[in-house]
Amino acid sequence: MDLATRIAAGQGGFVLFALTPPRQSTPAERLPEIARATVERLDHLDLDGLILYDIDDESSRNPAERPFPFSPTVDPSTYRAEHFGSWRTPVIVYRAVGKYQPEGLRTWIAEQDPRSTLTVMVGAASSGATPPLSLADAQALRAEANPDLLLGGVAIPERHRRRENEHLRLIAKQEAGCRFFVTQVVYDVNAAKNLVSDYRYACEERGTAPVPIVFTFSVCGSMKTLEFLRWLGVDVPRWIENDLRHATNPLRASLEQSAATAAELVEFCRRLDVPFGLNVESVSIRREEIEASVELAARLGAQLRVSPDAR
Amino acid sequence: MDLATRIAAGQGGFVLFALTPPRQSTPAERLPEIARATVERLDHLDLDGLILYDIDDESSRNPAERPFPFSPTVDPSTYRAEHFGSWRTPVIVYRAVGKYQPEGLRTWIAEQDPRSTLTVMVGAASSGATPPLSLADAQALRAEANPDLLLGGVAIPERHRRRENEHLRLIAKQEAGCRFFVTQVVYDVNAAKNLVSDYRYACEERGTAPVPIVFTFSVCGSMKTLEFLRWLGVDVPRWIENDLRHATNPLRASLEQSAATAAELVEFCRRLDVPFGLNVESVSIRREEIEASVELAARLGAQLRVSPDAR
Repeated sequence: MDLATRIAAGQGGFVLFALTPPRQSTPAERLPEIARATVERLDHLDLDGLILYDIDDESSRNPAERPFPFSPTVDPSTYRAEHFGSWRTPVIVYRAVGKYQPEGLRTWIAEQDPRSTLTVMVGAASSGATPPLSLADAQALRAEANPDLLLGGVAIPERHRRRENEHLRLIAKQEAGCRFFVTQVVYDVNAAKNLVSDYRYACEERGTAPVPIVFTFSVCGSMKTLEFLRWLGVDVPRWIENDLRHATNPLRASLEQSAATAAELVEFCRRLDVPFGLNVESVSIRREEIEASVELAARLGAQLRVSPDAR
Repeated sequence: MDLATRIAAGQGGFVLFALTPPRQSTPAERLPEIARATVERLDHLDLDGLILYDIDDESSRNPAERPFPFSPTVDPSTYRAEHFGSWRTPVIVYRAVGKYQPEGLRTWIAEQDPRSTLTVMVGAASSGATPPLSLADAQALRAEANPDLLLGGVAIPERHRRRENEHLRLIAKQEAGCRFFVTQVVYDVNAAKNLVSDYRYACEERGTAPVPIVFTFSVCGSMKTLEFLRWLGVDVPRWIENDLRHATNPLRASLEQSAATAAELVEFCRRLDVPFGLNVESVSIRREEIEASVELAARLGAQLRVSPDAR
């Protein structure tokens, strides 16, 4: 069953891989080869779909200096249309809604084929900014302009640990049309289990079926990657930082930890009967980190297929 | 190699089981049968040793109402001497040092056979109280009165998450004579890994060899047990609370989670070359929780023996 059909049916059991498109400053003639290298790396993985992120300058969210300077990236929908023609499974295209004018976003939504495209809408980074389009407006546009286009939302276990209401935010997003959720990178297995558990029982209370939660994992093999993940709001544990300073193979350790966390979440979601997907985010441009991401995705895929009773 | 020899050599790879002696209010004639039932339950586990806790009224530490009323328990050393004659491996007897007069504690220390007894000294619960004997005084007594008696200290990963200096406290305790550490119950695998990692690299910096860290696990199968663990300072995750309210077999889920956490810590310690032991604490008087504790200890023991390259 393909990704869109599964999600439309409220079912999980899929594996995704998430990429950020190249920077806009990349010479145009290099884009085809970058995309081709990506497709070659991912082709044998039998992925159920890709995620393409839409990067906004989030400096308004975080007063700390950005570890990598912000550099606008190629629009994910354009990148996909121009360079991923050979890709065979659906693509989840992110939309940082604060970047768009209502008419432009409406046109984009209306043009998408819901069998091959899904979208995740992300609100503006800071509540201080007043973007032309709020997340609620954008969600309403989707319902109006292309109701079959499957909509997802973001889920942040760390926020649940601090505020304990992320499960209610998920339910509100579900009422606004979300049919799946994608987490930010998970390192804290208990924070993720707490969110899943609270969400599941809140759904039960309301007589609502839980929708698939896609857990995102990443490897972290360099201090730059660690700093970037932390800047994004991920609680990367201190032992990983120590590993990076001292251990002979921190990348391998991070890969093993992500696989162990995923295994625990898979077992937990199955027990609680919450549909789920697994996603590997490639956050680095270093070759060895990219290759470790691909290996992680292969392992997660093998794990799901060994016991394919996932909802 | 027996427990005392291993610890004296700075080696881990052992499995323990921890008990709190019965309440003093227990009719004296029932103590032999309680102890016999315990020995029968544990005998087949091939444990490397037992831990017997010394309970102090910790109400001074925590202003919240105690979920179980405090009730003094039988002295662990007396309980062991009178009822564990048939037990064949060493016993780690806790000493809540705030309860004792210097002379009484010195006598007890001097009388112990270091081949069959080890001790963990615990400081007074609240810094507000002024006990007759401080932890430092008690540690000095041990060094003086029976320097071969192996001394351990407590390690609290949750405290490390809040204050980030628990590894330095361990090193200070080590300088005061501690040859091993026992954690409180671990649910947060990242907090435990952070502590191990910080401790290991701080040892390296000082040219000190790390001593065995004994990780404690428990099952939690009832709201009473959950409340008690939280009162003791353990961060029991919210998903376990939800399980207890809703799931058909929360005790089983808690057992699986403890086993998964242990497996991850075993792998981590081996990679970092930090010696470790595993301990299962039975915190409940409910039969099914006790039996699940025994099962957990059996599984942890089997796991260590399958790959006995543990230091």
